[in-house]
Amino acid sequence: MNGAESVVATLVEAGVEVCFANPGTSELHLVAALDRVPGMRCVLCLFEGGVTGAADGYARMTGKPAATLLHLGPGLMNAGANLHNARRAHSPVLNLVGEHATYHLQYDAPLTSDIAAVAGAVSAHIATASAAETVSKDAAEALAAAQTGQGRVSTLIIPADVAWGEGGVVASPVAAPARRTVSDELVKEAAAALGRGQAMILVGNGALMKEPLIKAAAVAQATSARLASIGRNPRLQRGVGTPVVERLSNPASQQIKQLGEIRNLILVGEEPPVAFFAHPDRPSVTTHPDCNIIRLADVHDDISECLDRLAAATGADIAAVPLQQLVRPDIPTGPITPDTVAMAVGALMPENCIVADESITVGRSFYRQTAGAPAHDWLHLPGGAIGIGIPLATGAAVACPDRKVINLQADGSGMYTLQALWTQVRENLNVLTVIWSNRSYKILRDELSNVGLPDPGPTALGMLDLSNPPLDWVSLARGMGADGRRVSDMDGFVEAFRDGLARNTPYLIEVEI
Amino acid sequence: MNGAESVVATLVEAGVEVCFANPGTSELHLVAALDRVPGMRCVLCLFEGGVTGAADGYARMTGKPAATLLHLGPGLMNAGANLHNARRAHSPVLNLVGEHATYHLQYDAPLTSDIAAVAGAVSAHIATASAAETVSKDAAEALAAAQTGQGRVSTLIIPADVAWGEGGVVASPVAAPARRTVSDELVKEAAAALGRGQAMILVGNGALMKEPLIKAAAVAQATSARLASIGRNPRLQRGVGTPVVERLSNPASQQIKQLGEIRNLILVGEEPPVAFFAHPDRPSVTTHPDCNIIRLADVHDDISECLDRLAAATGADIAAVPLQQLVRPDIPTGPITPDTVAMAVGALMPENCIVADESITVGRSFYRQTAGAPAHDWLHLPGGAIGIGIPLATGAAVACPDRKVINLQADGSGMYTLQALWTQVRENLNVLTVIWSNRSYKILRDELSNVGLPDPGPTALGMLDLSNPPLDWVSLARGMGADGRRVSDMDGFVEAFRDGLARNTPYLIEVEI
Repeated sequence: MNGAESVVATLVEAGVEVCFANPGTSELHLVAALDRVPGMRCVLCLFEGGVTGAADGYARMTGKPAATLLHLGPGLMNAGANLHNARRAHSPVLNLVGEHATYHLQYDAPLTSDIAAVAGAVSAHIATASAAETVSKDAAEALAAAQTGQGRVSTLIIPADVAWGEGGVVASPVAAPARRTVSDELVKEAAAALGRGQAMILVGNGALMKEPLIKAAAVAQATSARLASIGRNPRLQRGVGTPVVERLSNPASQQIKQLGEIRNLILVGEEPPVAFFAHPDRPSVTTHPDCNIIRLADVHDDISECLDRLAAATGADIAAVPLQQLVRPDIPTGPITPDTVAMAVGALMPENCIVADESITVGRSFYRQTAGAPAHDWLHLPGGAIGIGIPLATGAAVACPDRKVINLQADGSGMYTLQALWTQVRENLNVLTVIWSNRSYKILRDELSNVGLPDPGPTALGMLDLSNPPLDWVSLARGMGADGRRVSDMDGFVEAFRDGLARNTPYLIEVEI
Repeated sequence: MNGAESVVATLVEAGVEVCFANPGTSELHLVAALDRVPGMRCVLCLFEGGVTGAADGYARMTGKPAATLLHLGPGLMNAGANLHNARRAHSPVLNLVGEHATYHLQYDAPLTSDIAAVAGAVSAHIATASAAETVSKDAAEALAAAQTGQGRVSTLIIPADVAWGEGGVVASPVAAPARRTVSDELVKEAAAALGRGQAMILVGNGALMKEPLIKAAAVAQATSARLASIGRNPRLQRGVGTPVVERLSNPASQQIKQLGEIRNLILVGEEPPVAFFAHPDRPSVTTHPDCNIIRLADVHDDISECLDRLAAATGADIAAVPLQQLVRPDIPTGPITPDTVAMAVGALMPENCIVADESITVGRSFYRQTAGAPAHDWLHLPGGAIGIGIPLATGAAVACPDRKVINLQADGSGMYTLQALWTQVRENLNVLTVIWSNRSYKILRDELSNVGLPDPGPTALGMLDLSNPPLDWVSLARGMGADGRRVSDMDGFVEAFRDGLARNTPYLIEVEI
């Protein structure tokens, strides 16, 4: 057994089931090992940003890591932006990065680069394997690192001679450390703060899964606190049967207003809210200067157990939490606007669907219009690096083959990683992609006045304009084997959306908006 | 004048004429400054790999740096693979990377990451600006670093408050250090080694421009040495009127044979030849163990002046160098193969064209079949990170609007950065893209036996197969506003190639091969 085979066998034995891959020469023994050691599904992406965005989507929907297979430093850099997103989503991801043979590095061959430096910018754990005999242990440890807490990005660099070298042995699984338990003192402090009023429980990450969310809602109800989340969580279980959660707006100015009266902020799986970007003469922190912030449970803590104790301390009644009823908007007709498409999506989205949302500016009405839809999962963009939506939907569909995945996708960000559409076709994934074709980096146009540039010149406007030439997403999809159509009014959108939902195969709708 | 305006004014004054950009919020003041300070052309790309690949192509054809505008750490990572290539091509590139406002970094907002760590993997010079008053000096120094020697990748990180802060002043240009002069002793040693026979002059990088190349050829002729280059140089001036240069094959096994008799190897602008990848039980170094290697001129040294002295020391006669005559292959008919397309390209390529070659496996006959074509520049892939061809052609066309750019492009690598086709249309660039559609990562199939995997299983073969679904490049091009057609026999290719050459606008030919 060579080193590569021992790695694959170790990971399969530890429960890793999927590998998203864009391999090169230095990874060929790992690829070959996937044939020799059964049990790992290998999904090919045509660009590494697709690999890691898919691994993120898979991790969010399963709670477990996929492996990725990346080619040297350049492959890792191509994968980097979506690893940044996975890091911010606290998704467990295990990167296997091929490296030159150890004895070849000294010659500085063309593809040589400082892989560890790049890995350091996106990974919580980094190791470089040194021998075929021990690489499986390295892999088991890297996997445990990925599974620590809510999840982490973990990167194992595997030199080619370690992969092809004989002497590999299957390593025993390494247990990830248990989640930290929140102290009783902190729970008491949070309960006391909630008792003082003007309070908000800000839930994030794992606290947005239905069960902990109900507990948090019960606490909020018992203490008359507001229950809120920020607008860019990795996964939110919502719709019918879930508690209603207020959403903090992304623009800092609005967030400051929403948080203006709050003097006691209890963080559960979330960090203190801050502005996404600094803007001249505006504060970075969006809470009131007099707000008392209690970091009750970190994202990696045992959130659910912590909420049990907080519920007990506040006399919360989980059974009494009002849950969302089915309330659908009417289906609008006429022109396409962010509001009308949001209504149509809210009216039509099916039960148990997964929404991969990289709508950016078009998406501002979605939260409200889909709140009363049948139960669903909503995946957002915690890391802010655009170009995740199409890969994220791809990974979610690999994770959940029995569920419909709806990718609500801005056009500018979609262009970053459009290659993942090909993987959707190749794997025959159940993804409906909806492209909001506004033909601009509209969020940047909105940002111009925020940063003190209300009167941009033609060069600046030109840099934010995608209309010349117009992107034709139906042709782009066809180029990768996917069917699709373009719509320019609401009747067309509704018909196309219904059609896309009825299929179980990749389909794309380009919405002129 | 704010910091951003002072940077743009300083760069314009120092001769920087083009900025390739994919900006975000943190770069908006730099974008706005491009309106307020005239003189810089700004070219938008829809993905950062396009930005830096275009900057590389521009630098190779002009010898001077373009600026790039990149958005925070994720933007730099997206740009990273083609910055790796620029680094290996010794191209001068000046990256301006936006960063959060200095006072905002402490809050670890979503897009915060370690930009300098990533920059370090691809840059020879890295600096972070600290104040509006001094950022222009930082920019002038970063520009000088980019212009050092043959060229370097230089990265200046600009926090948003430094860009928008008032107090900027235009900085004086900083002179790049002069190229190092090669010592007389080394020239004498090289001349003596050439006199011992079994010698080769291995020219690379700047030594492949016509004038120094003629000098090197004269030395080779005078000493009966062989004159060769490796097969992946950033820019080679060749065709009619240039000296004939032997090409070392990329596969190490062939390179070892070519170098087998050489006992005196004189390096001029080149490093000692090594295998691109290590292969089990094969040497990393491709020269004979007894070969005496003389590093005469480093890539960053004054190569041309060094060759003058070497020519004098060896009694070389520049006027006596035989130069390539016009010798075109016949235009073949029948099926499309790597040989027949190479013949057709050699028969039809116009005088003074620029070839951006990322053909990978299909390209193995091009060197021979185009040797006697009219004078042209050939751009190759020194860094080995695939996904450069389409951006490289884009940048070369921006640099040389009066020349035809022919991008010979493999399909697998083309998919990495296909977004650059949109920029070609937007800028109405004179680029003919020829996609070799073999629908596989064929080079990896060839590599399987090299790395000791002669019998790959279905998973491994599947990872190298791009035929399901087949990519439809004509639709992909149409999606980005470019015309094109698909051809499947030589008559079709020749007609389409002639048609594409006759246009002055972007055109794509998908060649089923």
